[in-house]
Amino acid sequence: MSTTSRLVTSLATTEALAELFSDTAVLQAMLDVEAALARVEARLGVIPAGAGGAITASAKAEYFDTAEIARETLRTGTPAIPLVKALTLRVRDQDPAAAGFVHWGATSQDISDTALVLLLRRARVLLAGSQGRLDAALARLAADHAGTVMLGRTLMQPAPPVTFGLKAAGWLAALRRGWDRMEGAFEDALLPQFGGASGTLASLGDRGIEVAEALAAELELPCPEAPWHAHRDRLGWLVSACGVYIGSLAKMARDLALLMQHEVGEAAEPSGSGRGGSSTMPHKANPAGCAVALAAGYRLPGLVAGFLSAMPGEQERGLGGWHSEWPTMAGVIQTTGGAMESMAEAAEGLSVDRARMRANLEATRGVVFAERAATLLAARMGRDAAHRLLEEAVRRCAAEGRHLKDVLAGMPEIAGHPGAEGLRDLESPEAYLGSAEAFRVRLLEPEE
Amino acid sequence: MSTTSRLVTSLATTEALAELFSDTAVLQAMLDVEAALARVEARLGVIPAGAGGAITASAKAEYFDTAEIARETLRTGTPAIPLVKALTLRVRDQDPAAAGFVHWGATSQDISDTALVLLLRRARVLLAGSQGRLDAALARLAADHAGTVMLGRTLMQPAPPVTFGLKAAGWLAALRRGWDRMEGAFEDALLPQFGGASGTLASLGDRGIEVAEALAAELELPCPEAPWHAHRDRLGWLVSACGVYIGSLAKMARDLALLMQHEVGEAAEPSGSGRGGSSTMPHKANPAGCAVALAAGYRLPGLVAGFLSAMPGEQERGLGGWHSEWPTMAGVIQTTGGAMESMAEAAEGLSVDRARMRANLEATRGVVFAERAATLLAARMGRDAAHRLLEEAVRRCAAEGRHLKDVLAGMPEIAGHPGAEGLRDLESPEAYLGSAEAFRVRLLEPEE
Amino acid sequence: MSTTSRLVTSLATTEALAELFSDTAVLQAMLDVEAALARVEARLGVIPAGAGGAITASAKAEYFDTAEIARETLRTGTPAIPLVKALTLRVRDQDPAAAGFVHWGATSQDISDTALVLLLRRARVLLAGSQGRLDAALARLAADHAGTVMLGRTLMQPAPPVTFGLKAAGWLAALRRGWDRMEGAFEDALLPQFGGASGTLASLGDRGIEVAEALAAELELPCPEAPWHAHRDRLGWLVSACGVYIGSLAKMARDLALLMQHEVGEAAEPSGSGRGGSSTMPHKANPAGCAVALAAGYRLPGLVAGFLSAMPGEQERGLGGWHSEWPTMAGVIQTTGGAMESMAEAAEGLSVDRARMRANLEATRGVVFAERAATLLAARMGRDAAHRLLEEAVRRCAAEGRHLKDVLAGMPEIAGHPGAEGLRDLESPEAYLGSAEAFRVRLLEPEE
Amino acid sequence: MSTTSRLVTSLATTEALAELFSDTAVLQAMLDVEAALARVEARLGVIPAGAGGAITASAKAEYFDTAEIARETLRTGTPAIPLVKALTLRVRDQDPAAAGFVHWGATSQDISDTALVLLLRRARVLLAGSQGRLDAALARLAADHAGTVMLGRTLMQPAPPVTFGLKAAGWLAALRRGWDRMEGAFEDALLPQFGGASGTLASLGDRGIEVAEALAAELELPCPEAPWHAHRDRLGWLVSACGVYIGSLAKMARDLALLMQHEVGEAAEPSGSGRGGSSTMPHKANPAGCAVALAAGYRLPGLVAGFLSAMPGEQERGLGGWHSEWPTMAGVIQTTGGAMESMAEAAEGLSVDRARMRANLEATRGVVFAERAATLLAARMGRDAAHRLLEEAVRRCAAEGRHLKDVLAGMPEIAGHPGAEGLRDLESPEAYLGSAEAFRVRLLEPEE
Repeated sequence: MSTTSRLVTSLATTEALAELFSDTAVLQAMLDVEAALARVEARLGVIPAGAGGAITASAKAEYFDTAEIARETLRTGTPAIPLVKALTLRVRDQDPAAAGFVHWGATSQDISDTALVLLLRRARVLLAGSQGRLDAALARLAADHAGTVMLGRTLMQPAPPVTFGLKAAGWLAALRRGWDRMEGAFEDALLPQFGGASGTLASLGDRGIEVAEALAAELELPCPEAPWHAHRDRLGWLVSACGVYIGSLAKMARDLALLMQHEVGEAAEPSGSGRGGSSTMPHKANPAGCAVALAAGYRLPGLVAGFLSAMPGEQERGLGGWHSEWPTMAGVIQTTGGAMESMAEAAEGLSVDRARMRANLEATRGVVFAERAATLLAARMGRDAAHRLLEEAVRRCAAEGRHLKDVLAGMPEIAGHPGAEGLRDLESPEAYLGSAEAFRVRLLEPEE
Repeated sequence: MSTTSRLVTSLATTEALAELFSDTAVLQAMLDVEAALARVEARLGVIPAGAGGAITASAKAEYFDTAEIARETLRTGTPAIPLVKALTLRVRDQDPAAAGFVHWGATSQDISDTALVLLLRRARVLLAGSQGRLDAALARLAADHAGTVMLGRTLMQPAPPVTFGLKAAGWLAALRRGWDRMEGAFEDALLPQFGGASGTLASLGDRGIEVAEALAAELELPCPEAPWHAHRDRLGWLVSACGVYIGSLAKMARDLALLMQHEVGEAAEPSGSGRGGSSTMPHKANPAGCAVALAAGYRLPGLVAGFLSAMPGEQERGLGGWHSEWPTMAGVIQTTGGAMESMAEAAEGLSVDRARMRANLEATRGVVFAERAATLLAARMGRDAAHRLLEEAVRRCAAEGRHLKDVLAGMPEIAGHPGAEGLRDLESPEAYLGSAEAFRVRLLEPEE
Repeated sequence: MSTTSRLVTSLATTEALAELFSDTAVLQAMLDVEAALARVEARLGVIPAGAGGAITASAKAEYFDTAEIARETLRTGTPAIPLVKALTLRVRDQDPAAAGFVHWGATSQDISDTALVLLLRRARVLLAGSQGRLDAALARLAADHAGTVMLGRTLMQPAPPVTFGLKAAGWLAALRRGWDRMEGAFEDALLPQFGGASGTLASLGDRGIEVAEALAAELELPCPEAPWHAHRDRLGWLVSACGVYIGSLAKMARDLALLMQHEVGEAAEPSGSGRGGSSTMPHKANPAGCAVALAAGYRLPGLVAGFLSAMPGEQERGLGGWHSEWPTMAGVIQTTGGAMESMAEAAEGLSVDRARMRANLEATRGVVFAERAATLLAARMGRDAAHRLLEEAVRRCAAEGRHLKDVLAGMPEIAGHPGAEGLRDLESPEAYLGSAEAFRVRLLEPEE
Repeated sequence: MSTTSRLVTSLATTEALAELFSDTAVLQAMLDVEAALARVEARLGVIPAGAGGAITASAKAEYFDTAEIARETLRTGTPAIPLVKALTLRVRDQDPAAAGFVHWGATSQDISDTALVLLLRRARVLLAGSQGRLDAALARLAADHAGTVMLGRTLMQPAPPVTFGLKAAGWLAALRRGWDRMEGAFEDALLPQFGGASGTLASLGDRGIEVAEALAAELELPCPEAPWHAHRDRLGWLVSACGVYIGSLAKMARDLALLMQHEVGEAAEPSGSGRGGSSTMPHKANPAGCAVALAAGYRLPGLVAGFLSAMPGEQERGLGGWHSEWPTMAGVIQTTGGAMESMAEAAEGLSVDRARMRANLEATRGVVFAERAATLLAARMGRDAAHRLLEEAVRRCAAEGRHLKDVLAGMPEIAGHPGAEGLRDLESPEAYLGSAEAFRVRLLEPEE
């Protein structure tokens, strides 16, 4: 019976990230921990000198029957139990004297937690690659479009103008903050777990910390101050960091998807190579990258909640809490990385339609400058009077299909008004960008 | 590159449920929909008569390269696009004339949604089997232990007695209600989706509903009143039903895990065959079934939230929302079924220690009958005075290690009191069960 | 110190729903339960005949200091404890003999759970009112716009046409299904909770069920088969029903908000009376109702998750689980009702711009009929050839700003083609609605 | 009509934290922002010199009708609109010339976001106080109980011994990490929001950043590099930090509640002053603080999910996303702080029963040392043989009610065995603590 299940997540993640949590990868990561442990214990004389090499030699995923191990896991409550059994048998075959020293001093969760950490370390590299692509693409867009004026949109309605450069800088700054948090959380969480039965390393007598530190060094990880199997906050923080990052990435995707609407048409994801086609509609150029990122935006919060709610585990090793983590963690990392990669591709190939941006702005017939007019007039006639006057003018713009500056010019309250002068270039977007450019520049500067 | 990932979910679900969402199963379900559609369209003369058979003949999962389809999916935004392409190629090889009629009138989501429904129909059978086992096991426990007196426990502290039969009946009644909801939700949700590009079946002209009804009949499903691709409430309801069911199942698991504590020792999951062992501790008999159910209790709420938050999809087909559903849905069904199966096994083999239950009750030295004493005395001396007196008596029980009835007997306020008579069998649990047995019986009766 | 906190939820709910969970309402509901219990116990002779009236007379919220009760609650773990103490004092003042019979046979959770049920019964009426308004408004829109043709939009891109009537019917059918579920869940959940200390009503001896049934009758509620304090599935189901309903309502809100975009302009929420204005922009007419419903769509899933994750309570009364429910339940009901009321107002006053709908359709220059053209041509030249041809044609439409039918007419592959005839009315939306009208009608028919 | 709703959250939070989000506090915070803005704009000459003082003088919560403002909010979509209207009227009464300069350059969200930040700054102080109490109490427990031996418990079953000092140090270290994250997140998030209509401060011309920096200084906050109204990641990070912290705090609460069980009896929350009593059971001493923290553990994950899912807001100001934040944010902060305060009280008054801890350890009859025995024997007979032997020995302990060391002593496989020597003090917990003390010390050391 086959239990490959790549299709179910095919919309959520990349092949590399699917592979990261594949049976082979998971099994090998657990075996790597067993092997590293055996080597350092052999080196320190905790187990016989030969056992380290013997165990390492047998610790290869291809020697084992994943399906059988998976089957046993549901009964034993952890994959490490059937794995240790199988590994011991294999070692016995090769070097009977070493077999008794497999898994020495460790408990199941030590193996599965540390294996998870090894996988997360590999994930970090993949994610960092996507972040690099995103950062470069957005930095370029933010630079290229410093002067690209477009409609601001608030509450999904037209608002005074912004620049596309400012918008891209806003996305980028949020993703940089998000990635910094992820980096920090990875840094904190990438620690081996090694505590033995009750988290005291009792079976290693007074040599526990010595072995723990050697194991950490062997795995090229820092050694934590104590085992963390019963305290999942560092992983919870990493999961949360992914959740917050995806919140920002999905925001960028939502913005882009709105800009890509036919009626708006201000931007487009790259098409070609089958991206975003339709099985029935030849005309479609869908926001395929945005779909992946928005999907991540829907899934991540619930996965974060699932992880956090499992944190209050019982005493020295909880029941059910940490048992629930693997699928959540795999889902979080795969979905995060899949969305990053999809949006990187979208950002790199994004086309921006400057002319359409200006046209959409023009098509509001100046009503987005009503605030500007009100401010100009308010200085003379008071804010309330100005606000009321503009409401009336805006009403007329809509009813009569005329531009605000023309309507205003025809209103007797304004006609002779000295402020009327300032209304002449009322509808020039470049004249009403305020600090947009300054903000854009500040957003791109590295925080110190 | 292999992307099997059975290990990651090995603690959450069974092999059969893993298989249900395997690549082969998912692919075949999509192909089954394409084939059924071709057959009914051929039968109705919508496509040439021979195309139905030709397409059906090619619609076998083993003909296709899942890895390639999965790889394309992330770019195209749906697995149906690469699948239809591959299926068309295959059909062309076999029967060129039929190739043009693959997927006729359908859109990608029609295929993936209906395939999901076919998988859910199979899941329902598996889950029903587990529910049957749970129901039978709990009904037996509830019957056998009608008279098994045990400590009530409220806020994790001792309370007046209950019976284990009442406790088991409470679990069972909740799981029956939960299963009824799941059955109802399956009943509502198991509908084919068939709407074409915009949900109007426009490309089928005026024959859309005829084809839709024939397709439903071919798949042995009822025909919905209209396509539901943009309205995911029925699936959301099914997901919620799983969430509520698991809430009840995890409650049973939490109760059992508490009873299985060494210091309580009133119940035990079956051991043997490697269930619940430890990689390091030979003495362990762990609540392995409870771990799986509690893990489900931690995961499901977040998955439900993820599904619900994706419901507000845009217009005739949303962006990202339904794209996010497959992994959530697979996770919900697999986790629910895995927990059901694990708890069925736990319930079937549960050992209950009547003697220990009584001993733990006795060990409270009667303080759990303080309420009873207060009630008896309150009739004479008023509730406040009685409550105060009992607080003092309970304090003495703790301080002096004596039984409540003895302490009370020695208190001058009570000594000569006519109510004192009634205090003699104060600590008989059988005499203070109230309506426990009546409730047990009522809980087991079928609701009408 | 004041702790009114209406502002924090002012964007989420209505005044009536805020009032429903106000201190006065909550306190009075708890007092109503105590009073009803006293009356039925007095009537049945369980407590002295006079106590029922005396307790009822004192059970008025205005006699009590809510702030003091709230302060005590955090320490005692339930508001019922300080309330019973205060009520007893009040009764003693008025009728000392009755004071000892306050809360007779009940436990704190009996009072708070049943009070919650009384509040939910009132909530149901408010929600039903909003549903009635929504149903009426949407039924009218669905009827009025049976023939209002508009662009279908899938993945936020243009697709073959639909009718606004079909869209409104789809919203309505989903909300009707959702409301049926809510009604069913209310029906199941509106049950008094009465179980005493351990859920056996032990302190009432053999009269527990008699009192329970009389209490239910007094409160005009059905009597459950047993106490449900440790099994929260019925409330979980109600919370889930709200979550699913809001998913559908937020979908309608998202659709509307997209239609209201300036560049789309096909619909508008009613303005006037200050709805959806801006503090700075006189031109704004914001989708204020949609904002409330979308906000509900963001909040509900997490609240549902919070409720479900608290279900696995320990033994006869859990620790922390049910303690967490009140704010969640209030949030769910208030947010659901607030969104319903806001969308009812939006639907009732919705303006629909038929001309703009047609204009937006036209503006796609027929490319949304590419599928239609492909189908027409496929019958002659095979689907693949047709699909390729249309891709080329669509590319030219975009590049040359021409209509699809004109581009096609000029393509040599088609010119002389017999299928070319059928292409003449290619871009008539009315001719390509498929089963839209039939689906609209079927969606509005009552399910039997 | 009153809409106070303190009772609904009375179990979740303290009076001070309820007050923090009271109408008066929220209103005053918004007014403080308006006043500060007016003062700095007057000082900079952006508005007339007198307007600053005039507006500040009117910006007092007691002048306004909260109920009216709340009522308007649901229609206008933000509380700032009715508030600005009311404030303008008030200023006009007092100083007509200043009235036109209320809210100059700001938009509604600037006011509500910055007001939220002011409230969060006050919340931080309250939470820091609770953290200080928790830290001190736990540090004392961790120090006092360095040598207090107790049963380790894994998967809710007995395991080799630990010390209570190590357990307390584990709690403390997790809470310190959690608090560091919260401090960091507060530090990042406490920034004023000031962007005007589209986030460009256009209406202030080229003086936007000058005013923004002066406003930040006036509020004693750092000035962000740009407005953040459309990027909610910093708040999402703070919410997540609360979620992770509460995960650790609820873990401590779960541990304590398990230790407080009657059958375990190793620890007790302080009672007295009405803490944790029962309305019916005079004998109860409930884990009242744990209930509050566990309730927080159930609620927070869903609230975090709700916040994160609302992050992908549309363009320059989203629809519904940020509208949903206030109740979530208030719930998160209040629930976090309520749980911290409750657990601080629990930790400060915690009683620990050393004798009972040792007695419970003894009561396992040495089976928790089976691992130790297996390790000792494995060196001679191989791990598998030792493991099998111990399984048999443990079985006999249970069946015969004997101690492990006695059973082992009587087993022929061991009797003459040289390793048997080492088994003599097999059941001395002090001899099998491994690195417990070293870990305890390392956990308490400040991370550098």
